Amino acid sequence: MTPATTDLTPIRTAVDGKRLWQSLMALAVIGATPKGGNNRQALTELDREGRDLLTRWCEAEGLTVRFDAIGNLFARRAGRQPDADPVAIGSHIDTQPTGGKFDGCFGVLAALEVIRTLNAQDIETERPIELVSWTNEEGCRFAPCMMGSGVFTGQLSLEAARARADVDGITAGEALDAIGYAGRDADCPRRFAGYLEAHIEQGPILEDEGKTIGVVTGALGLKWFDVTLTGMDAHAGPTPMHLRRDALLGATRVVEAVNRIATAQAPDGRGTVGAFQVSPNSRNVIPGQVTLSVDFRHSDDKTLAAIVDEFRRTLDGIAAETGLGIEITPTADYPPQHFDRACIDAVRRGTEAHAYAHREIVSGAGHDAVFVADVAPTAMIFIPCENGISHNESEYATPTDVTAGANVLLHATLELAGQTAKVTAAETDA
Amino acid sequence: MTPATTDLTPIRTAVDGKRLWQSLMALAVIGATPKGGNNRQALTELDREGRDLLTRWCEAEGLTVRFDAIGNLFARRAGRQPDADPVAIGSHIDTQPTGGKFDGCFGVLAALEVIRTLNAQDIETERPIELVSWTNEEGCRFAPCMMGSGVFTGQLSLEAARARADVDGITAGEALDAIGYAGRDADCPRRFAGYLEAHIEQGPILEDEGKTIGVVTGALGLKWFDVTLTGMDAHAGPTPMHLRRDALLGATRVVEAVNRIATAQAPDGRGTVGAFQVSPNSRNVIPGQVTLSVDFRHSDDKTLAAIVDEFRRTLDGIAAETGLGIEITPTADYPPQHFDRACIDAVRRGTEAHAYAHREIVSGAGHDAVFVADVAPTAMIFIPCENGISHNESEYATPTDVTAGANVLLHATLELAGQTAKVTAAETDA
Repeated sequence: MTPATTDLTPIRTAVDGKRLWQSLMALAVIGATPKGGNNRQALTELDREGRDLLTRWCEAEGLTVRFDAIGNLFARRAGRQPDADPVAIGSHIDTQPTGGKFDGCFGVLAALEVIRTLNAQDIETERPIELVSWTNEEGCRFAPCMMGSGVFTGQLSLEAARARADVDGITAGEALDAIGYAGRDADCPRRFAGYLEAHIEQGPILEDEGKTIGVVTGALGLKWFDVTLTGMDAHAGPTPMHLRRDALLGATRVVEAVNRIATAQAPDGRGTVGAFQVSPNSRNVIPGQVTLSVDFRHSDDKTLAAIVDEFRRTLDGIAAETGLGIEITPTADYPPQHFDRACIDAVRRGTEAHAYAHREIVSGAGHDAVFVADVAPTAMIFIPCENGISHNESEYATPTDVTAGANVLLHATLELAGQTAKVTAAETDA
Repeated sequence: MTPATTDLTPIRTAVDGKRLWQSLMALAVIGATPKGGNNRQALTELDREGRDLLTRWCEAEGLTVRFDAIGNLFARRAGRQPDADPVAIGSHIDTQPTGGKFDGCFGVLAALEVIRTLNAQDIETERPIELVSWTNEEGCRFAPCMMGSGVFTGQLSLEAARARADVDGITAGEALDAIGYAGRDADCPRRFAGYLEAHIEQGPILEDEGKTIGVVTGALGLKWFDVTLTGMDAHAGPTPMHLRRDALLGATRVVEAVNRIATAQAPDGRGTVGAFQVSPNSRNVIPGQVTLSVDFRHSDDKTLAAIVDEFRRTLDGIAAETGLGIEITPTADYPPQHFDRACIDAVRRGTEAHAYAHREIVSGAGHDAVFVADVAPTAMIFIPCENGISHNESEYATPTDVTAGANVLLHATLELAGQTAKVTAAETDA
């Protein structure tokens, strides 16, 4: 008989990649779009159908399914220590209006696949494992994003979340009640021993460097601004170049400054002007006003502050040189998030156990894990997505990478939950 | 008795500035806006009221008023040679939706003031004088602009002009019929001995240089383009700077190139990006596409062509360096217009006779005169407008400058029409 320690090293415990892929494709049927993507926005009838399917799958695995007051799903697989804090694994199944099949769904169904694998291989854990599917991560129908994890972690009150209305004036609370998925907090865990979230990268770094797994060490901090440049509208024909006060010409210098300042802080610096409105926006009128958004991100608090300092100084200079009025309004500010070292190490060991090409990476996007990290030891697992494309119907991850991500999740979950193998169990029986 | 040559030198013949100002203010009551401007768009009920008032004023001066098929008003003061081609003077009385009191109206009412002055001072001319008020110069309700002079000069067919629809689907023809101002071409002159149009500058040059009168020698040629830059949408957080294909960053280089290339061709070069759309225009998405308009102008054909050559070469370079797709579509092309030397000289002599500070200037904007110049000897007279502002409710010209512009128009009209003073007439009788 092979000794337990050999038989049950995590490298030998692997998920069923084909089953996981089939589940991903089955969930993607609900709200499928003509271009191969998904439109299953939070708290819609299609979200209800998705939740129904996920609940059936969880119950088929013998999990105990509950919902908290904001509709977050918790599906528990018991551990040998029934009262121990669970290890939570999951993500979200709501999508953007023209979203893909993988954003969020991969993390939830990888968690389901971990549980299916444990069940199929009769592996017990010391701690319970809690599959989690967070409500309204995308925030596209009801702002803000990460609503379910935001309520869970106290970033947002239940009342405030329920009061948020969509464009038709329907509140999140009304929509949640209508699909029948408002539950009771008392039925659900409030503490996790750890939280692991597998997700597509939503960026191009892993693909560009040929890596299979990103060991996510945290999330970039973020500072957002609105900038308004004010010059003077004037007729394009009669106004000579030297007498213009062209707000668009000044705005181009702001766009360049944002890019230059962020690029100087590679690899983690990000600087983006995404929204940009020109007024009066007429072919033969020199623009008198431009409003634009600025999005700066970095993994380090001090560097992020330095980026903003340089940005403000640069804009002061542009205002002085051009004679344009420049107004800067901060609109959002989140500090960098640093994940738990033990959770990160568990992910890295899972990656090494499977010999997957990997690198440490910092999440540039927000995730439920970024909120959960405030209340529980947390880490994330990234897999590449084709061309870095996400929030798009063409979003794609390969079956190989999907399987790899789930295998790392399995390994790390077993490490955090305390693996108790069937062989060990058999030996105990003996 | 003072000899005729002394008595009737143009310097002694001056308009009644106060009467002209009062007429300008009286017309501006029709379609007055709360901010002190005018909304009297072409072929509206308010345009009809404006035409009614102008017609009454013309008839009160004994003029013969007719309208052609597109509604252009012709009001004739007879000359001693009744069959000679008339000297035409005028402009337009339609306005932008948030237009001012002076754009167009100044030229029409300065022409009326010239005729009132000739009547009051009993001055005859050899040629008839034809006050003209062109239909729909602004083009804001019905495109294109300069519709009435465009039909008159054959730039546009009557049928095509009448078929143009406003946003409610009403055609220019229907609107013209509804206000009762469609007339017969046969009743109106088809040839002018000369055409003079007084207008506010609609730019800042005269004010900047402290000049009262601009002797307009022609109009800038114009070349318009639409430019589309295509990169790749991507999430602002997870996409590092070096893996971006940011269409907005490329577009800033286009804006700068347009400005740089035009500025190098001072004083007549103009380069403007006025319309600018960013897609998807979302705060945390790197822009995948930008479309923008480019407006180049110059007084010289060859220089304008060289500007466009350099523009195309520069954009080829930007495309090669950034990897963005750049598509350039020409959307309009008008050659520079050169006014008639004799008409320009008549304007200059009028200016010198009054010792008004003046300079030669090239019109940067389109005017009815630019079309008329194709079929008749033409010139224009510019007066300053405050801060160069036009197409705006705050548009303003001083009573002093308005009077000066009308005095120059009077002088030049008398020169072109052949002045025959009452004293001369009395001598003839004797």
